[in-house]
Amino acid sequence: MTINTDVQTALEWRYAVKQFDASKTIDASDWNTLENALHLSPSSFGIQPWQFIVVQDKTLRTQLRAASWNQSQVEDASHFVVLTAKKTMDVQYIDAYLNRIVEVRGVDPSSLDGYRNMILGKASQPSQAIESWTQRQVYIAMGMLLATAAMLKIDTCPLEGLSSADYDRLLNLTDTDYTTVAAVALGYRDIADKYSLAKKVRFDKESIIHYR
Amino acid sequence: MTINTDVQTALEWRYAVKQFDASKTIDASDWNTLENALHLSPSSFGIQPWQFIVVQDKTLRTQLRAASWNQSQVEDASHFVVLTAKKTMDVQYIDAYLNRIVEVRGVDPSSLDGYRNMILGKASQPSQAIESWTQRQVYIAMGMLLATAAMLKIDTCPLEGLSSADYDRLLNLTDTDYTTVAAVALGYRDIADKYSLAKKVRFDKESIIHYR
Repeated sequence: MTINTDVQTALEWRYAVKQFDASKTIDASDWNTLENALHLSPSSFGIQPWQFIVVQDKTLRTQLRAASWNQSQVEDASHFVVLTAKKTMDVQYIDAYLNRIVEVRGVDPSSLDGYRNMILGKASQPSQAIESWTQRQVYIAMGMLLATAAMLKIDTCPLEGLSSADYDRLLNLTDTDYTTVAAVALGYRDIADKYSLAKKVRFDKESIIHYR
Repeated sequence: MTINTDVQTALEWRYAVKQFDASKTIDASDWNTLENALHLSPSSFGIQPWQFIVVQDKTLRTQLRAASWNQSQVEDASHFVVLTAKKTMDVQYIDAYLNRIVEVRGVDPSSLDGYRNMILGKASQPSQAIESWTQRQVYIAMGMLLATAAMLKIDTCPLEGLSSADYDRLLNLTDTDYTTVAAVALGYRDIADKYSLAKKVRFDKESIIHYR
């Protein structure tokens, strides 16, 4: 079971990097796979209520760092992805998605009527519930990205400690239907990062995973 | 870049299984790795605001299926995990977590004072915001689990279409601080599942991933 051992090792190897080696860059082939982890991520109804912004501009990274409790990962990581969630779920968007299904799978549009009604039912919830729902979906993509990176021996740091309003302003999202929910820095750990040696802190497995 | 190719293939291979082969079982070694994907999943502050319930009792699976729009995956999958989120974030829980850090890393408790204040600051948000926040963390674990399973060539189906209240009642969670947010069925696709051959529907990568 080599693959199992490799996967297990990758899960243990992953940690939230505090200090990236700013001299190291993720190569194009690996980056393409990481993009696909986001692009192919599952979501409720497959509706993909998200956009991902890869920020490589140095000036913008400096500004985003200031909006992230000055965490150095924002500037030092090879790649920096801002994860945004769709704020609303309107019928136009739902129909664009259904049209995409028709386009990709060549199915009859009317065969999707039942599915359309299910999604419209979900979309009829109060706006606060919709926003929580789309944000949760984005976190599936975050988890997919973090796990995929670990398999590729690429380091990550998920960042939730950021000013969503400042990010939205800096990324020109304020007047759009997308809002920043989190970010992920990706690259390679600095050998000086003492946290790479720190033991993982988890509650006992038996207190977290139960059997029925 | 063999590992890259393997990872890429796994991401494309994954889909939300509609029909599991009820005769196939995930072996203990693979299951242990999947448990670790949950147990080792990152979360905000590392606070692990979740519990995972693996339901193997057949009668209970039948009852949960009825609370999940009668989706067959609930009964037919090899393993079925209910993902629950902590409803509140109280000082007792935060201190239990900090004590765990002290226990695992052997650090001086006072060295965590600043960290404690940061977590307490987060925990002082309105209860609705806390609940959305803990639920989002659970979705990181979901993403980690789905990606890890794909790497092991184990099929999955995430389920959000379920009655959280019914699940909580059936799992005796109603009077606890945890509530059901989603579930994941894991096992092996049935060869008759026509969705295994369906093309993945995604918006154009260029409309989802942007560069700045």
